[in-house]
Amino acid sequence: MASTTPSPDSQFIIGVDLGGTNIVVSAMSLDGSRLFGSQSEPTLAIEGADAVIARMARMVNTTVGITMKEAGVPKSAFLGVGIGAPGTVDRETGRVLAAPNLKWYDFPLVERMAELTGLPVKIDNDANCATYGEWWLGAARGGRNVIGVTIGTGVGGGIIIDRQVYHGSSDAAGEIGHITIDLNGRRCGCGNYGCLEAYASGSAIAERAREALLNDESSVLPSLVNGDHSKITAAVVYSAAGQGDALALEIVRETARYLGAGLANLLNVFNPDVVVVAGGVTQAGEALFGPLRTEVRRRAFKSVSDACRIVPGTLPGTAGVVGAVASFISQTTGHPPA
Amino acid sequence: MASTTPSPDSQFIIGVDLGGTNIVVSAMSLDGSRLFGSQSEPTLAIEGADAVIARMARMVNTTVGITMKEAGVPKSAFLGVGIGAPGTVDRETGRVLAAPNLKWYDFPLVERMAELTGLPVKIDNDANCATYGEWWLGAARGGRNVIGVTIGTGVGGGIIIDRQVYHGSSDAAGEIGHITIDLNGRRCGCGNYGCLEAYASGSAIAERAREALLNDESSVLPSLVNGDHSKITAAVVYSAAGQGDALALEIVRETARYLGAGLANLLNVFNPDVVVVAGGVTQAGEALFGPLRTEVRRRAFKSVSDACRIVPGTLPGTAGVVGAVASFISQTTGHPPA
Repeated sequence: MASTTPSPDSQFIIGVDLGGTNIVVSAMSLDGSRLFGSQSEPTLAIEGADAVIARMARMVNTTVGITMKEAGVPKSAFLGVGIGAPGTVDRETGRVLAAPNLKWYDFPLVERMAELTGLPVKIDNDANCATYGEWWLGAARGGRNVIGVTIGTGVGGGIIIDRQVYHGSSDAAGEIGHITIDLNGRRCGCGNYGCLEAYASGSAIAERAREALLNDESSVLPSLVNGDHSKITAAVVYSAAGQGDALALEIVRETARYLGAGLANLLNVFNPDVVVVAGGVTQAGEALFGPLRTEVRRRAFKSVSDACRIVPGTLPGTAGVVGAVASFISQTTGHPPA
Repeated sequence: MASTTPSPDSQFIIGVDLGGTNIVVSAMSLDGSRLFGSQSEPTLAIEGADAVIARMARMVNTTVGITMKEAGVPKSAFLGVGIGAPGTVDRETGRVLAAPNLKWYDFPLVERMAELTGLPVKIDNDANCATYGEWWLGAARGGRNVIGVTIGTGVGGGIIIDRQVYHGSSDAAGEIGHITIDLNGRRCGCGNYGCLEAYASGSAIAERAREALLNDESSVLPSLVNGDHSKITAAVVYSAAGQGDALALEIVRETARYLGAGLANLLNVFNPDVVVVAGGVTQAGEALFGPLRTEVRRRAFKSVSDACRIVPGTLPGTAGVVGAVASFISQTTGHPPA
């Protein structure tokens, strides 16, 4: 008697988004249609790699258990674990080469997780995963060549070419935060000058707002932080902009101009059909995306900007997990997920 | 009786490099090992598209004739014609969409050439072809992910990903001359500000030299152009730099810094294993490449710059033709040439 091949919606992959702050885990069906057992816990990197690994493995095993019960599938329905890890990773050897947030250097993540879960494990960079997630099930769905920019504390990025994550020659492609937009400009955390990240990251947005407040008395921003300027974050700026605060709106427009110059660079070189901008910055909404699209149109070639839509991410909080699953599928089969 | 399959060194493709100034044509064997019947004639675009097409077809037919004789092969040994055309092209429809140098707009180049030569014809952008030529048989040989920058009057570029030319979503990828390196900087011919081309093109190099001469009395540059500053070209600057002229050397070093900032951008995003810099600028030799490599190392991530060699092109004058042949092979078979 021939065995039946299980259908794609009853086979599962566990996606893990390993962040500096939180670990997020979910089970997803191979066809992307079903999500089970989502959990989030603090990473607590300070407790050391062994504790983080143990926590992550326990979460994966719990998610497997929940999914078996809720979806009514056996253990054999789980094909493996995809992990999006911060920093540089070597997909071949399964090692995290350098993740400064976690203080992990040359760490055998795949080997350790495979031991503790009994499942095949694949890793990829977290920003690559976030972009791949938005491509598979989010805002960049249907795109062929996609650039993802995630604006959080820093500016991360990922590149998809012909429906697969592009990793470059040493697994380090996509450092979109570190393209130079002003070669004599602001010093960046990376040591270089004028990087996009030095202007458009969450920290840079907050810093530019604090600087602008030195010459302004009408903004509502100080009142939102009880007068303590050190408490101003990008989120506070977006919130003030939403209330129509002139200074906050100008900071958002300026951010759009910097980001627009960076994206126009990438458009002229990559000619993508979608750019997806994700992270906290999407809270600024049209106050950001309007001037951003204008700036890109102004700077990029017409045939290039006409071919490209610029959209906010639609999977906040889950893009990383979804993309880790997509990356597992792509690395295992050599093809993008369906 | 079964027919014998001809060996790759006795099958030929005609490569055409259609430039604004000259048309260059050669026959090349499928394996890249043999070159026959090379010719160059002025384009004379001013005579109109019909005259240019007729000239190009005549050159192709002459090259076919010469190759038949010299290589001792029949007409059936010629598989087709690859053409590198300036401006934007649509490979699918075989049309040149816009080639301002030739004043061609939406011109059916493939159809017209196929009629006049009786051979299958494929087109690609000329800068893509130049990069692909350097990859196939020149300085970028053996590379997997390659960026080509050609510095002539302007700054052209091409991108190779996984051994094939990357064209982007609307056949417009690779406009490396128009990445922004200083968002408040020099006005570029494209209408934008601070493009790499506005600093590092041949015309920009000459212009920066003329500007620098306003405050300099010791340079040999004026003596090389009989005191007529308007006759200063990039080539004159490289020549003066070769003689150790301090002002010319500073212009070359400055060019290296601008180009280095632009290339570092691309390295952080693309993580290529080779960057090939071609065009007149290679005449400046180590005076350019030394500081260029230093600037890239200073600005790009270490893991990224360690993975990449930056080399001068080694096929001056022929990269375009070689790449047009490679592009024909790639477009016809779906695989890069062997």
